[in-house]
Amino acid sequence: MNSNTDTSRSTKASAPVALHARTSVEQVEEGRELAPKFDQDGLIACITTDADSGDVLMLGYMNHEALVKTVQTGEAHYWSRSRETLWHKGATSGLVQVVEEMRIDDDQDAVWLRVRVSGSGASCHVGYRSCFYRRIPIGSQRHTSTGLVFAEPTKTFNPALIYGDAPNPTML
Amino acid sequence: MNSNTDTSRSTKASAPVALHARTSVEQVEEGRELAPKFDQDGLIACITTDADSGDVLMLGYMNHEALVKTVQTGEAHYWSRSRETLWHKGATSGLVQVVEEMRIDDDQDAVWLRVRVSGSGASCHVGYRSCFYRRIPIGSQRHTSTGLVFAEPTKTFNPALIYGDAPNPTML
Repeated sequence: MNSNTDTSRSTKASAPVALHARTSVEQVEEGRELAPKFDQDGLIACITTDADSGDVLMLGYMNHEALVKTVQTGEAHYWSRSRETLWHKGATSGLVQVVEEMRIDDDQDAVWLRVRVSGSGASCHVGYRSCFYRRIPIGSQRHTSTGLVFAEPTKTFNPALIYGDAPNPTML
Repeated sequence: MNSNTDTSRSTKASAPVALHARTSVEQVEEGRELAPKFDQDGLIACITTDADSGDVLMLGYMNHEALVKTVQTGEAHYWSRSRETLWHKGATSGLVQVVEEMRIDDDQDAVWLRVRVSGSGASCHVGYRSCFYRRIPIGSQRHTSTGLVFAEPTKTFNPALIYGDAPNPTML
């Protein structure tokens, strides 16, 4: 009986993810149907934050498949715009992002993942915990400096050791 | 003497914001020069979080002018993609976002604002505090529900009273 229940529960968790057509503003904003809006490149923006600190770790993009895999597995998947491929975050580095909570915004053109990161906890290919490791001085903060200020003092890993000679994803 | 100092400080805060040309991966990732990458529409994505709770409030977009105004004034400015105009957040609703910290990511194609919101503290035109007021069940959470789950139980204001008959910005 327990085993039957487990099978049923497991089946439900991995069941197909229904993405609904967008039919009205009310459906999109006030409804319970997942009806994401992908842009002209078939992508939706994804904000990823650290479930403990609340810090923004990265802004990624998902295609239909990445969104569905994230929902089914509970591990963050993205579309790599530089490599043009599905990207199971952490597959190379071991720094898998386990999703604690996934949300979608009012017009369903952006998602938010709250994650716990395996290993060192880093999410940035440059070696920092967060991709947002530099501060832009604003308003009265510009009295002291107008250049970028490093908010994370040190890298958590050496990218050359993790990624070897893989191409750098940053595009000019 | 104090008055001279104040003038000098004030001038520095409102001084022109230098946006540098992108010349190398090293400059963009490791440098102190602000060299943002605007997309084919002239926009850069902006994640806005609550400075106290860490909750993501919204994902907006900035053009060159909105980014510069945010840096100079310390109040969030965006580019409204639906109205196609510069958008000083809170100009209509009074819910101004005062920026505590502004960051930029590794490849400088996204910014992050940590803000304190005036008034009721809401940032979503539907009436919720956060635009991300619905949860997408993932993995084992799908045993209970596969539809969206409201994470904020009530709206903080009635949009009809604030925005009147202004067009809804959500696009299908």
